[in-house]
Amino acid sequence: MPVNLTAPNPSTLLPVPGIEIGTAMAGIRKAGRRDLSVWRLAEGSAVAGVFTQNRFCAAPVQVCREHLAAGHGVRALLINTGNANAGTGEDGLIRARQGCIALARHLDLSPEQVLPFSTGVIMETLPVERIEAALPAALADLKSNQWAVAAEAIMTTDTLPKAASRQIGIGGQLVTVTGIAKGAGMIRPNMATMLGYIATDANLAPRLMQELVREAADRSFNRITIDGDTSTNDSFLLIASRQAAHEEIDSLDSPAGLALRAAVIAVAEQLAQAIVRDGEGATKFITLRVEGGKTKEECRQVAYAIAHSPLVKTAFFASDPNLGRILAAVGYAGIADLDQTRIELWLDEVHVATRGGRHPDYQEADGQRVMKQAEITVKVDLGRAPAGENRPRATVWTCDLSHDYVTINADYRS
Amino acid sequence: MPVNLTAPNPSTLLPVPGIEIGTAMAGIRKAGRRDLSVWRLAEGSAVAGVFTQNRFCAAPVQVCREHLAAGHGVRALLINTGNANAGTGEDGLIRARQGCIALARHLDLSPEQVLPFSTGVIMETLPVERIEAALPAALADLKSNQWAVAAEAIMTTDTLPKAASRQIGIGGQLVTVTGIAKGAGMIRPNMATMLGYIATDANLAPRLMQELVREAADRSFNRITIDGDTSTNDSFLLIASRQAAHEEIDSLDSPAGLALRAAVIAVAEQLAQAIVRDGEGATKFITLRVEGGKTKEECRQVAYAIAHSPLVKTAFFASDPNLGRILAAVGYAGIADLDQTRIELWLDEVHVATRGGRHPDYQEADGQRVMKQAEITVKVDLGRAPAGENRPRATVWTCDLSHDYVTINADYRS
Repeated sequence: MPVNLTAPNPSTLLPVPGIEIGTAMAGIRKAGRRDLSVWRLAEGSAVAGVFTQNRFCAAPVQVCREHLAAGHGVRALLINTGNANAGTGEDGLIRARQGCIALARHLDLSPEQVLPFSTGVIMETLPVERIEAALPAALADLKSNQWAVAAEAIMTTDTLPKAASRQIGIGGQLVTVTGIAKGAGMIRPNMATMLGYIATDANLAPRLMQELVREAADRSFNRITIDGDTSTNDSFLLIASRQAAHEEIDSLDSPAGLALRAAVIAVAEQLAQAIVRDGEGATKFITLRVEGGKTKEECRQVAYAIAHSPLVKTAFFASDPNLGRILAAVGYAGIADLDQTRIELWLDEVHVATRGGRHPDYQEADGQRVMKQAEITVKVDLGRAPAGENRPRATVWTCDLSHDYVTINADYRS
Repeated sequence: MPVNLTAPNPSTLLPVPGIEIGTAMAGIRKAGRRDLSVWRLAEGSAVAGVFTQNRFCAAPVQVCREHLAAGHGVRALLINTGNANAGTGEDGLIRARQGCIALARHLDLSPEQVLPFSTGVIMETLPVERIEAALPAALADLKSNQWAVAAEAIMTTDTLPKAASRQIGIGGQLVTVTGIAKGAGMIRPNMATMLGYIATDANLAPRLMQELVREAADRSFNRITIDGDTSTNDSFLLIASRQAAHEEIDSLDSPAGLALRAAVIAVAEQLAQAIVRDGEGATKFITLRVEGGKTKEECRQVAYAIAHSPLVKTAFFASDPNLGRILAAVGYAGIADLDQTRIELWLDEVHVATRGGRHPDYQEADGQRVMKQAEITVKVDLGRAPAGENRPRATVWTCDLSHDYVTINADYRS
């Protein structure tokens, strides 16, 4: 059961001028589900992406990188679920390219103007011929108001589609930012989530796209973890169709640039949190705030050590304030000169540990009360940096480890 | 259910001359169980240990390090289960020392000659007064043939005691090596397991003890992982009572030194594997062999990434040959310049993947057959080093992630 997450109301997902989406049933893994999506982007669209750091990256990730590097501009996306086309060697690359060639032919583009994305089971051959056969149906379905359907068409073990929308005013024009994403396991993004797409009609200078997609990833998808498994297929794409009639935004620090950044980051953060809320088997949504490390990276390292500890995660599942497990994870996070006598720990507002030991006022009943909530904030102060505005801090969002996680992943292919 | 592990037959656990063990019921956490052990070591015994690298190390670990550094020789051990005395701040140190003082008084030793060990729940106050009250009973119980009882008296979530014994001949004398250990969760030792003790009557030069305990740890406890959680209390101690009548062993590379090393390592390896076989919720015993990295450390890093992947572990639990998950873990293990097209993967003798993709001869039925076994060997070749005798390789032992792991850790304190 997702934690405080519901399916997005399709009427709240605003079309983005210049972007059309069509879906079809290609029967990639199972019959009767919309498993293929085609996106058509208006001429002049700017596109930038961040991709998995997994060295066993999937064939489509390799092809995406090549096609973006080719610099011919991106005019279409080809996305399938049901098969990740990862661990498929040279043959996988050929099949990923074959899909791009087929779609390019339909749309009168060069294959480098198409980006391919796959998600699903690893190490199985992508049935690209089924994708080719379903392309006409997907193309016939192209419309601008299909974001809710698009969010459903990329799901794997997700129980709910994930989508978000914002509108802002730039130069007197209404500008839209709409995005979709999918989880729900093998989630410890390293530069991007499994699959995430955010589109806007804002007229943003193409040279600023990479910086914005990177910042949005760092403040959203790169702050979440479900099981610590970095996927082979993580991809996060930002598309600006540049159809809005305002003047080109030529700096991310201008008023218009700041407004767009805030909207893109807000959508990215909502999508990233939705992935955690719908994490495989999740029953709790946990926010980990670590501060007072010598660097921001140190704070992140500790937050991830806590977030990845199976013992911490099962304690959250059990609503058991077995909080020594959090201290143990802080201790093995890899800070060689950590002084345990400076560590402070809070569960929401309850001060659990001080100077590395149990706080004298801490009552088990208070810990128990917080642990029973569906949303919990853990705060750790490492005591390695002076107080102040620029004190290093990091936030990571995660979920608990439940019986259902084991069930889902033990049964995924059967 | 432990994987191919049974309780040791007490008659096979050979006494070690110079070592006596007594146990008592101190009621530390629960009444009616032997939760306190006292070990008395003969005068002249040499002792060396390796301890957790967790910076949140428990109070007894800190006191052990101090007492070993004091250099007065170790004559007694004081071990309790039911409470880890970790995350207990300054008060925890005082209580750990208080136990040593009490036992030293009974045995007419200085407190620095006593080493304390605790295992159990973290962040709760150690009821040292109950330990003091039970000391006379434990001391009255001191005998040389209590290894089976000692193995039971250190258990926490272990379902079976773990102990092993070997005898070798050195200089015409029969020399004994006997050890005990406990798991069974929070196991990703970094220098040592949760608690492990190996004793011998061999007359080994004290200056060689540290090297031998380190080598034994590296070849046993430092090769296992259950959940990746490095404990706050990991301790592995090697004791040589030096009662055997052979000449002092003054080199670990002499024939006698080699024989002793082999016996100590064999006992350590058996104990380490027993911990994995009795891992929380374990249904499979997995051996991960990684070779062909540029360094041994690189091979270890990949082996641990596979061993810690919740997705890999649940696939083993399900007997599902979803082997792409192993390739994904290889990919995110942190080797920046890994070339996926050189990766080979075997499940026992079944060649699953070649050059980073599915092997053309691989049949799902073959993978399925191996996955159903209780003991499975995964072999990965990283293809980064030439073949030959000195090719870097590493072995790690682990278990699967089952529903029972979640149940055990969600219910541990309740």
